[in-house]
Amino acid sequence: MTERFTADYLIETAGDPARAAETMAGEQSSGTFVAVPGETAELKARFAARVESLELLDTVDSPSLPGAALPKAGAPKRWQQARVRLSWPLDVIGPSLPNLVATIAGNLFELKDFSGLRLMDVTLPPAFALRYAGPRFGVPGTRQLAGVSGRPLIGTIIKPSVGLDPDQTAGFVDELVTGGIDFIKDDELQSDGPACPFEMRVDRVMAVIERHADRTGRRAMFAFNLTGEFDEMRRRHDHVLARGGTCIMASLNSIGLAGMIELGRHSQLPIHGHRNGWGALTRAPMLGWAFPAWSKLWRLAGVDHLHVNGLQNKFTESDESVIASARSLGEPLFSSHPMTAMPVFSSGQTVRQAAGTYAALGSADLIHAAGGGILAHPGGIAAGVEAFRAAWDAAMAGMPLERKAEINPALAAALRAYSG
Amino acid sequence: MTERFTADYLIETAGDPARAAETMAGEQSSGTFVAVPGETAELKARFAARVESLELLDTVDSPSLPGAALPKAGAPKRWQQARVRLSWPLDVIGPSLPNLVATIAGNLFELKDFSGLRLMDVTLPPAFALRYAGPRFGVPGTRQLAGVSGRPLIGTIIKPSVGLDPDQTAGFVDELVTGGIDFIKDDELQSDGPACPFEMRVDRVMAVIERHADRTGRRAMFAFNLTGEFDEMRRRHDHVLARGGTCIMASLNSIGLAGMIELGRHSQLPIHGHRNGWGALTRAPMLGWAFPAWSKLWRLAGVDHLHVNGLQNKFTESDESVIASARSLGEPLFSSHPMTAMPVFSSGQTVRQAAGTYAALGSADLIHAAGGGILAHPGGIAAGVEAFRAAWDAAMAGMPLERKAEINPALAAALRAYSG
Repeated sequence: MTERFTADYLIETAGDPARAAETMAGEQSSGTFVAVPGETAELKARFAARVESLELLDTVDSPSLPGAALPKAGAPKRWQQARVRLSWPLDVIGPSLPNLVATIAGNLFELKDFSGLRLMDVTLPPAFALRYAGPRFGVPGTRQLAGVSGRPLIGTIIKPSVGLDPDQTAGFVDELVTGGIDFIKDDELQSDGPACPFEMRVDRVMAVIERHADRTGRRAMFAFNLTGEFDEMRRRHDHVLARGGTCIMASLNSIGLAGMIELGRHSQLPIHGHRNGWGALTRAPMLGWAFPAWSKLWRLAGVDHLHVNGLQNKFTESDESVIASARSLGEPLFSSHPMTAMPVFSSGQTVRQAAGTYAALGSADLIHAAGGGILAHPGGIAAGVEAFRAAWDAAMAGMPLERKAEINPALAAALRAYSG
Repeated sequence: MTERFTADYLIETAGDPARAAETMAGEQSSGTFVAVPGETAELKARFAARVESLELLDTVDSPSLPGAALPKAGAPKRWQQARVRLSWPLDVIGPSLPNLVATIAGNLFELKDFSGLRLMDVTLPPAFALRYAGPRFGVPGTRQLAGVSGRPLIGTIIKPSVGLDPDQTAGFVDELVTGGIDFIKDDELQSDGPACPFEMRVDRVMAVIERHADRTGRRAMFAFNLTGEFDEMRRRHDHVLARGGTCIMASLNSIGLAGMIELGRHSQLPIHGHRNGWGALTRAPMLGWAFPAWSKLWRLAGVDHLHVNGLQNKFTESDESVIASARSLGEPLFSSHPMTAMPVFSSGQTVRQAAGTYAALGSADLIHAAGGGILAHPGGIAAGVEAFRAAWDAAMAGMPLERKAEINPALAAALRAYSG
């Protein structure tokens, strides 16, 4: 018996959910809108997608998306939501990530039966673990390169996002590293424009980081945004590696899966996966992708760090969704090859989110990045970093933030500066 | 003065639209949620994104997407929709498609100011035309390779979509080419799985096509789906080329932009761009991407054919949207380098959609693909193809379909078989 892969969906339909699920399975395998002569029973048995389970959820009184078939005449004006699991034989596509996407997330979003269709999760057979290496560094490799153990990496981002030239960027990095930061990232808008060429930025920034490393023995991790065409990304990666850099960053939705697979195979550095553009895929509740399904593909392709937003973030995402995303990165993809990735919490983060993040995640294996939450500390960057570390010490020791602040002036100042 | 690129958005906000537009511009360039010390007036003047125009549209009485900021206390519970144009200096990113995506379609989909945000169009400076070659074949190259002029290419798809082995696929192609078909494509689910290996499928299919070409002097165009990792796609392309094939197909959302750029640079054959997965990006009316913006990026990267759905299709898309998409492919990207692509009409198509398609598009420069609309013709495949050609002859001559059917029995049979 051949191996199968499965995908879970949230669906919404004005018709019979069981029949709609069969339509999905047909359209995404051997069937089509009309009966086809060659679709024999034997062929279907070997190659057709199957509906593995169907669980009815709530009904709603208006369709979540336009364009779908309406309730039949005389039927109640209700749309049924349901959770569906489909499975496919691996024989059709083989263990290929790009072809997996066309199968589990292809035309089915446009099927007329559905006023809502969202891909929630995916489960893959071990053949995928043989074909794709997954993250090479993950949490342990990142911790080793950054010289940070037992607490999160405290991170920040170059600000302003764009407009600094390589020397100005390096000057800012000097301040940050002097202040004790563990991790710095380029903005996703900054890659290799004429105003701040990539290789020159790497040279200037790494000179600063190496100078500090000579003094402290610890090399701050800088995620250089090498997003671009494949030859560019390879060349930029090699340049970072040659200059002693310890991390590269790519905008996943900008390069796409084939680009990321190549980069993952080529890279000798942790890959910081930026998910900008993700909102377009996920923000409509009954359309697109949920994070666990989406992130699994990038983990397989080799992404080490993945952005998950942060608690009480400045974007539209709920805390519940943020934590579900972060947790999903720690769930093993395969028992033999867990391929876990390191979550990156960011967006409007201050010392006030440390305890909640730790409590919800149950782990300090993460990067906690803050812009204003560190840079705007009234005592300066060093005090901003110290306050963040103190907040995490307190969180991990189960000590209230206010009590820790009594013995840590930097944290006390942060609590005054960043009101709850 | 530096060149700038622009992007147009449809937005929806509970707040002041002008202020929301400024937030977009700030977040996607030098600004951030809080004032940053280094964001000087000089830096902003050189690097900040600008709001070029703002046009108020309707208001709605509930937010299109969840998570956004609500109307202020006491303010009316109305959400304003508007059309916004932003511009950015090219100096920040240079003429790079992947970095363009991170800029015009990055984090902004998640901004709390917006209960709706959709990227409608993009305008690029000539530097992009120097960097990217666009489609190498387009309409004229495709017509030349397929030996079809003065009418659409009549196409179909291998059915069942999956499950046929290479010999069975070739047997079906034999029937189709015997029937006079111009264009055949693999299903997007069929690439290089163990059940139908790519190279063997190419060998078997091309043997059939070459045999017919020896007889007729015309080589039916087969779009072989080579979707996969980059090395695989290059190898598969080379194999198709070596066997005399005239078209390759890729699932654009499965491979991504970096993969497509590489494929476009490498390919010596027309690239048939399949947009499966597109529904996830476009189906929520106030989120994601409109086709003109999205397709321009793929045209630059070198896609020759792009799917646009079809009139009265079996999916959820309206005829108006289908035609707007198809028309957009014919609008020049640059006056010096139009980079127009060939639209592919498909999904539930029969002879009955020819006249409407021609009238709406004003052109026969397209591929018109039908599955059941050709294969299920009661007179067989040859009659199905003949009926389609006759329907297009009539459409282009301004003759009613029924009148043409009086002198064309195949069309008459089609009209009986495919009721309106």
